[in-house]
Amino acid sequence: MTNKAEEQTAGDLTRTGMALKHDRTWDYELDRIAEAVAEREATTVGLQFPEGLKRRGPAVVRDLGKILPETTEVMISGQPCYGACDLDTHLMRRTDLFVHFGHSPMKESDKILYVPLFSNVEVTPIMEASLAELAAPAEDADVGLVTTAQHMNQFDAMRSWLEERGYTVHTQRGDDRLTHEGQVLGCNYASADVSADQILYVGGGKFHPLGLAMEHPDKTVVIADPVNNVVTIAETEKFMKQRYGAVHRAMDAESFGVIFCTKIGQGRWETAQEIAQSNDDAYLITMDEVTPDRLTNFGLDAYVNTGCPRITTDDGPRFDKPMLTPQEYRIAVGEEPLDALAFDTFHGTW
Amino acid sequence: MTNKAEEQTAGDLTRTGMALKHDRTWDYELDRIAEAVAEREATTVGLQFPEGLKRRGPAVVRDLGKILPETTEVMISGQPCYGACDLDTHLMRRTDLFVHFGHSPMKESDKILYVPLFSNVEVTPIMEASLAELAAPAEDADVGLVTTAQHMNQFDAMRSWLEERGYTVHTQRGDDRLTHEGQVLGCNYASADVSADQILYVGGGKFHPLGLAMEHPDKTVVIADPVNNVVTIAETEKFMKQRYGAVHRAMDAESFGVIFCTKIGQGRWETAQEIAQSNDDAYLITMDEVTPDRLTNFGLDAYVNTGCPRITTDDGPRFDKPMLTPQEYRIAVGEEPLDALAFDTFHGTW
Repeated sequence: MTNKAEEQTAGDLTRTGMALKHDRTWDYELDRIAEAVAEREATTVGLQFPEGLKRRGPAVVRDLGKILPETTEVMISGQPCYGACDLDTHLMRRTDLFVHFGHSPMKESDKILYVPLFSNVEVTPIMEASLAELAAPAEDADVGLVTTAQHMNQFDAMRSWLEERGYTVHTQRGDDRLTHEGQVLGCNYASADVSADQILYVGGGKFHPLGLAMEHPDKTVVIADPVNNVVTIAETEKFMKQRYGAVHRAMDAESFGVIFCTKIGQGRWETAQEIAQSNDDAYLITMDEVTPDRLTNFGLDAYVNTGCPRITTDDGPRFDKPMLTPQEYRIAVGEEPLDALAFDTFHGTW
Repeated sequence: MTNKAEEQTAGDLTRTGMALKHDRTWDYELDRIAEAVAEREATTVGLQFPEGLKRRGPAVVRDLGKILPETTEVMISGQPCYGACDLDTHLMRRTDLFVHFGHSPMKESDKILYVPLFSNVEVTPIMEASLAELAAPAEDADVGLVTTAQHMNQFDAMRSWLEERGYTVHTQRGDDRLTHEGQVLGCNYASADVSADQILYVGGGKFHPLGLAMEHPDKTVVIADPVNNVVTIAETEKFMKQRYGAVHRAMDAESFGVIFCTKIGQGRWETAQEIAQSNDDAYLITMDEVTPDRLTNFGLDAYVNTGCPRITTDDGPRFDKPMLTPQEYRIAVGEEPLDALAFDTFHGTW
């Protein structure tokens, strides 16, 4: 038995400003969870959902209750979850089996069961539409292909579809942080380091392709979004202006808070330490969730976030003081030139 | 050398709506910290400040830097901190010495150094003013005396002052959760369980005396606030109306989120488990910080918070769904009568 309830929620489009054009259904793989419970003789089970799917949590608990032994205790994580590195380690320690939905594993553990939640949305219609933006094969046959975890199950089909139309498709696995060939994360675009001047990104949202375009400024990034049914070209100009603005404002800062994020997979200790040691007015601050509320009380002039780069770039405008990536900090204090500014990415696992 | 810098900030009055009438200075006991660093041969030190004093963190780091060995690494906790049970255990694990400022210990550990930050504000002028609200000794000589951690250093003086004026002062230590005789916490008023019909609370803020009055509805609670320079009588009516309102709204709820708080000292597992097991439409959700943002995504009709009762009562109106204490939940589902409603308190340590 699987649970294919129709999604009534905005899915993972929270904060993207986009509207959902397709209803999506998800397979929560309840049978696989029940098997894992039986195998491990688990009496406690923890479930963790990405933000956009938390609303489905109670129904999944209810459906699991019907197939699990009556004494099994199921708990849902209430911690924020935007990616594989947002693992709720506390709930994991507290339970015999921990199920993480919607993100592919960054690192495996016997206790964790990853349920990928692949999207059921067809990708070929939007790929058809994307041909208008891609160079024709006669002109430039090389195309890089990347997608996100939720469309990974259709990756081979995407590749074949492009090959049938005369393209030479370039893909690669990226680095250790990425589970699948062709996969990108919000913080890692190494899978797009391929010999092609154009990259086709198939996936929802606008954050991932923006990072992709920033990380590969010499490539054209075509966004085929099967969820919102739109094809666009990633434009980095507005984003860059925002980043330059933050750097310029931070140039006047006399004090810096250097944030070391304590989340698994987000700790760049050497980077944080280096900044704090090289600047008498820089103070190390440790935290898990990096939010405007938590920083306001410190009253420092600017902050450097060595944790998740998406917090810095996507949430940056929500902070009342300039929030910089480590490189942007070095530019602000004159250690690097302004035109060196690049997208902040993460490599390796934890 | 100690650091007695003048406070420019609102101190711990955040969210009380009160204005600071006295400048306060705090003794950060830098010498004691330096001694502890030397004794433990600590190379890493973590500092945790209550919200209202986080702004002083960078200056304390700077001043410590002048007296600690140059290689000592000092980090500040960026986790929210409203009480002794908000210990940043992650930073504690990461450092050789962990300094917690402003709250008295709920439990001791070799690694933790508690620095109490006693207030330097004189209490006798406001006690003088409080005599207008207390029954005269000839009428009722018995008075209970309680205060908060930050005025604890003047507790004996308060007692003597009242005795000199003809009162019989009743005090007690409360239970294991409380460090000092006469001390109250936002979640524990056991030290006011004394043989007196009137209680004199000496301290800032309005949350503590409100809890006190709720917990002891048959006693008159006189608030002598030396920080804001006002004397008032604790009134619970408005507060009770808010709580009854939450209970009434929750009576229509079809689904409940039962929050188990993972913070040290805030976990009431049996209580959470009992509710979840007795109600098919109640779902266990685990988290550390309990905030409106984190609950919104679950979309349940009402929530029961088994963690810090002050979140439920003080922050209740900020949640878009009714937020109940465990007892309020039992009232909402008809297991207890409405007029049984009492203040939710915590007992014991962790």
